[in-house]
Amino acid sequence: MQQKILIENAAIVTMTEESWIENGYITISGNRIQEVGSGSYQGDRSFDKILDASGKVVMPGLVNAHGHAAMVLLRGYADDLPLMEWLQTKCWPIEDRMTEEDIHWGTQLAILEMLKTGTTCFTDMYFHMDGVAKAVESSGIRAVLSRGMIGFPPKADTAIAESRDFFNRWNCAANGRISVILGPHAPYTCPPDYLKRVAELSAELNVPIQIHLSETAGEVERCMEEHGCTPIRLMEQVGLFERPTLAAHCVHVTDEDLDIMARYNVHVAHNPDSNLKLGSGVAPAVKMLQKGLIVGLGTDGAASNNNLDMFEEMRQAAMLHKGVNLDPIAVSAYKALEMATKDGAKALFLEDRLGTVQSGALADLIMLDFNRPYYYPRHNVIAHLVYAGQSGDVTDVIVDGQLLVENRRVLTMDEERIYREVEAVCERLFK
Amino acid sequence: MQQKILIENAAIVTMTEESWIENGYITISGNRIQEVGSGSYQGDRSFDKILDASGKVVMPGLVNAHGHAAMVLLRGYADDLPLMEWLQTKCWPIEDRMTEEDIHWGTQLAILEMLKTGTTCFTDMYFHMDGVAKAVESSGIRAVLSRGMIGFPPKADTAIAESRDFFNRWNCAANGRISVILGPHAPYTCPPDYLKRVAELSAELNVPIQIHLSETAGEVERCMEEHGCTPIRLMEQVGLFERPTLAAHCVHVTDEDLDIMARYNVHVAHNPDSNLKLGSGVAPAVKMLQKGLIVGLGTDGAASNNNLDMFEEMRQAAMLHKGVNLDPIAVSAYKALEMATKDGAKALFLEDRLGTVQSGALADLIMLDFNRPYYYPRHNVIAHLVYAGQSGDVTDVIVDGQLLVENRRVLTMDEERIYREVEAVCERLFK
Repeated sequence: MQQKILIENAAIVTMTEESWIENGYITISGNRIQEVGSGSYQGDRSFDKILDASGKVVMPGLVNAHGHAAMVLLRGYADDLPLMEWLQTKCWPIEDRMTEEDIHWGTQLAILEMLKTGTTCFTDMYFHMDGVAKAVESSGIRAVLSRGMIGFPPKADTAIAESRDFFNRWNCAANGRISVILGPHAPYTCPPDYLKRVAELSAELNVPIQIHLSETAGEVERCMEEHGCTPIRLMEQVGLFERPTLAAHCVHVTDEDLDIMARYNVHVAHNPDSNLKLGSGVAPAVKMLQKGLIVGLGTDGAASNNNLDMFEEMRQAAMLHKGVNLDPIAVSAYKALEMATKDGAKALFLEDRLGTVQSGALADLIMLDFNRPYYYPRHNVIAHLVYAGQSGDVTDVIVDGQLLVENRRVLTMDEERIYREVEAVCERLFK
Repeated sequence: MQQKILIENAAIVTMTEESWIENGYITISGNRIQEVGSGSYQGDRSFDKILDASGKVVMPGLVNAHGHAAMVLLRGYADDLPLMEWLQTKCWPIEDRMTEEDIHWGTQLAILEMLKTGTTCFTDMYFHMDGVAKAVESSGIRAVLSRGMIGFPPKADTAIAESRDFFNRWNCAANGRISVILGPHAPYTCPPDYLKRVAELSAELNVPIQIHLSETAGEVERCMEEHGCTPIRLMEQVGLFERPTLAAHCVHVTDEDLDIMARYNVHVAHNPDSNLKLGSGVAPAVKMLQKGLIVGLGTDGAASNNNLDMFEEMRQAAMLHKGVNLDPIAVSAYKALEMATKDGAKALFLEDRLGTVQSGALADLIMLDFNRPYYYPRHNVIAHLVYAGQSGDVTDVIVDGQLLVENRRVLTMDEERIYREVEAVCERLFK
């Protein structure tokens, strides 16, 4: 379906060298951006849809580089607990009872929230992944999906088999909007031999890996006791880093860990809010950037956040590291915006130009109403987006060239039904 | 004007021991809450206004315990600089050129933003304060105002005289919505002898004092060199703490400082986002709370934030201290909500019941649309408000018994005109 869209009268944040077009237009053909120009659009007007962006800012859709979408079902269920207690006594017992149907509805709620708040691409590590993939397919969002793998009996082998099956069924599905990667949960839930099998499968299928690494001090301590080295060093030893790897969290990493990660070009999903909320700490994002690592931003699951709002993560990434490093230039507004857009796309091993507004890039765009008190006066649009911006200002969302949100209404989803179904699911899960 | 308002079908966050009414009503008579009840309202329906709060949450309006409203004029003008450089090379030269008219329009923009994002009361320390007070009076918001005082020639004496005049003209004005206190800027801009004069004036007029204290490590160091003690100890020595004092920031305070503050019942305005953004650090809020200090939350000026969004400060207060203390129960969601409502009102020396929803309290209330994806499922409304909430969901705002915002429209202000006037002001100031 080669639908053609014109966006005109737009202020455009391109995330390219050009950086900023005060008044311009964008044409979209199929799933790609065709042309980006300054001034009024003068060409032929035979478009399927023309969007007037007067008073709005158009920018790349946000990329959520780490999460567990269906955990929205646990939002607000158990706050203010330590990570392990929270996982073991609260999350896991409920998750054990979740069916594919539950996860399908949970993921729909998550996608509804993401689309409305400007996220056009997310990654997921969960289970009953067909329920997730179907929600991605029907909603129109872009996603990098992995079946979470726990390397202990009785489900260790099942997880490998299901990951392979899931890859075969869903990789490159939905016009290429879905890519499948492998998702071993963490070194403390996947023994070294199991991780070796995951690395082998990754090579066989030619897909990257995502894994939680060094999220808490306790996890690193235990790894030192059991394996005599840090989780990062352990991943090097088992050969995981021979494969393209996205490491989530990396809060408690040493300088040597970071050198190892740089050597293997390990990507990082930085989740500032989740790390704060669970009391895990503050990841050394400034050092990561100095080492040249690719760092994307993620919300993590909504249960530890408690939303999927990438504007908040972006703001936090720009604020937090200034404060804890006593350095007001630690992470600039522009760098935070890069982390939430094109660097996030790179972190997820997606196409080079995703996360930018330029000819030939995949057409994943969002529009924000800039007619809000906190966007005045107009000294600096980038600073306004990052430091003062709010996801509630997102009015329109295009993913893969398709208009999914128009004037705040999600065209591909039944919002009221999702709320009803989610409440019904929770009625049963938490009874 | 004894206007009567009924709010019905409301989910009510009371911030009292009751804490939460799933479905209830509130009646308002004049500027006070008359009755708060569960279930349907059954009484006489002769109200001037009846608000249907179906699907909404009603809660106390938020209290912004520290700021410089008209600094919205500098929003996004100069980010990512150290505090002193930022003040001296960017803020102060522009501020020197500001007229009362400029500050009036800047303050109107700030109040517009605050009302729309759920703040019903703020404090201000700035200059040309008539321009501020007039904006407070006409907009209908509540405010605690102080003329900022710099204790060096040529304006030291003027600042004292103007503070006295400003008190005489505006204290208890606007149906009591305006209270005037004294605002010596900081120990590094007000020498000890000057601060003694301020304390005397405070006793003479019987008003509290607000002052910036121990915001940066450099400021504390310089104080140690010049005076041989910390700023907190210095304030004790000059007798400032003999007077009711609100201390903004207190980022770099020792345990002994905190003991001094506790002894004199010094109130604190905690500004987590501003302290992060300027690279000042993280205030020891957990210790402050443990010492029993009254801690309110503030945005500080928009130039170091860059918005006046108290939902963001509340979220940050609940998140940040968990992360930096590696303690997931450091500041609970409920405590953060208290800090943003009733504790903020206490910090500003306002009436006891302000910041709660109960019979007899001043009627400062906000309503939020809870029909948003991130408020589902409904496990815990307090957690949702603090961790997942967004100021953009505020639909209606009542201050002092007057409906100021109805269905997102500010009834007392001309939004489009404010934007135009602010742009015109900036055109001149920044040329």
